[in-house]
Amino acid sequence: MEYSRIAPVMGRLWSPIAAVTSRWQSKSNAQICVAIGAASIVPSMPRVVVQIYKRNYSHEMVYRSGAFALNYLRIDQLQYIKDFGLVSGRDVDKLGNVPHTLKSSGCPILEDCWGYLDCRVVNAMDGGDMTCFLGEVLDGNTLSDSEPLWWRHARTVIPTSWMEEWDRKISSEIEHSVTSMEAIDYSPWESQG
Amino acid sequence: MEYSRIAPVMGRLWSPIAAVTSRWQSKSNAQICVAIGAASIVPSMPRVVVQIYKRNYSHEMVYRSGAFALNYLRIDQLQYIKDFGLVSGRDVDKLGNVPHTLKSSGCPILEDCWGYLDCRVVNAMDGGDMTCFLGEVLDGNTLSDSEPLWWRHARTVIPTSWMEEWDRKISSEIEHSVTSMEAIDYSPWESQG
Repeated sequence: MEYSRIAPVMGRLWSPIAAVTSRWQSKSNAQICVAIGAASIVPSMPRVVVQIYKRNYSHEMVYRSGAFALNYLRIDQLQYIKDFGLVSGRDVDKLGNVPHTLKSSGCPILEDCWGYLDCRVVNAMDGGDMTCFLGEVLDGNTLSDSEPLWWRHARTVIPTSWMEEWDRKISSEIEHSVTSMEAIDYSPWESQG
Repeated sequence: MEYSRIAPVMGRLWSPIAAVTSRWQSKSNAQICVAIGAASIVPSMPRVVVQIYKRNYSHEMVYRSGAFALNYLRIDQLQYIKDFGLVSGRDVDKLGNVPHTLKSSGCPILEDCWGYLDCRVVNAMDGGDMTCFLGEVLDGNTLSDSEPLWWRHARTVIPTSWMEEWDRKISSEIEHSVTSMEAIDYSPWESQG
């Protein structure tokens, strides 16, 4: 199967761009994510699913703390794609100069963003190269009337140098994912099936 | 937290409308779903996550067969919302008069749709009221140049009587979900944490 045949389908299955924030052992971090879905039909018990790649510094922080926050970006907040998405929290304190507060889950909430969801992990699934976390929304708000930032828009307006850096980063991640995607822990699935 | 504060966020985390098809023990079924996300950055190994409610007839079929297909609808295919979404496969053979073929996964693929993804289950996560399935895309295609059908559009154009029926169905499902969402099998998560 040529990927181009399903690209229009897959392209519509990503979310708006969020800075996923986490906090563990007094360290805070943020990363960029577009793999987020709604996961509840009950308005009084909102939930989301979020996929975090295992190689990301955030992965262990979310896994250990059992918490994360989703901070959706406005279309004028392109800078965070570079600041949160093109460097690692292992090297840089990404939130050092970014105004934020800690809320219910203990994770940093950006004071200036399109809207946020503050979440506690209630379950998780091994995806091989990533973990898919199921999160209960403890708190949240929408802070803007306009449309949030989507990747299909962002990629047309960010500087060419960022795009090149992004492509290099993704190429390296794809290479690693290919070898690790097969290594799923199937046991919970098999024991129930 | 008032749900209205996060409604604009949650509303952007649902997918286009798909007819999820399945086949088990020589019976085929279809249901409506908008809880679908992309789950792979590797073009040669596309994956998706799909949430199926446990009360749905399709749930056991997907669970037992380890397969499902996503058939996205065109904006002129509103009728399937009623035919697949407002009745149960326990009572009706929903695909009896709908042209379809069986492909790689063994699931029915609608001959006439916006596009489809034919998938094999590779892992699953208990969400209490639903199971979140991780699926490997075995085959797929895009059959239209226009935009697929989204629920936020569909709800403005379907007949009032369908909308009332939909609201009644969702109300009943919400009531059941409230009591079953807490009953998650946490063991895989706890054993890894």
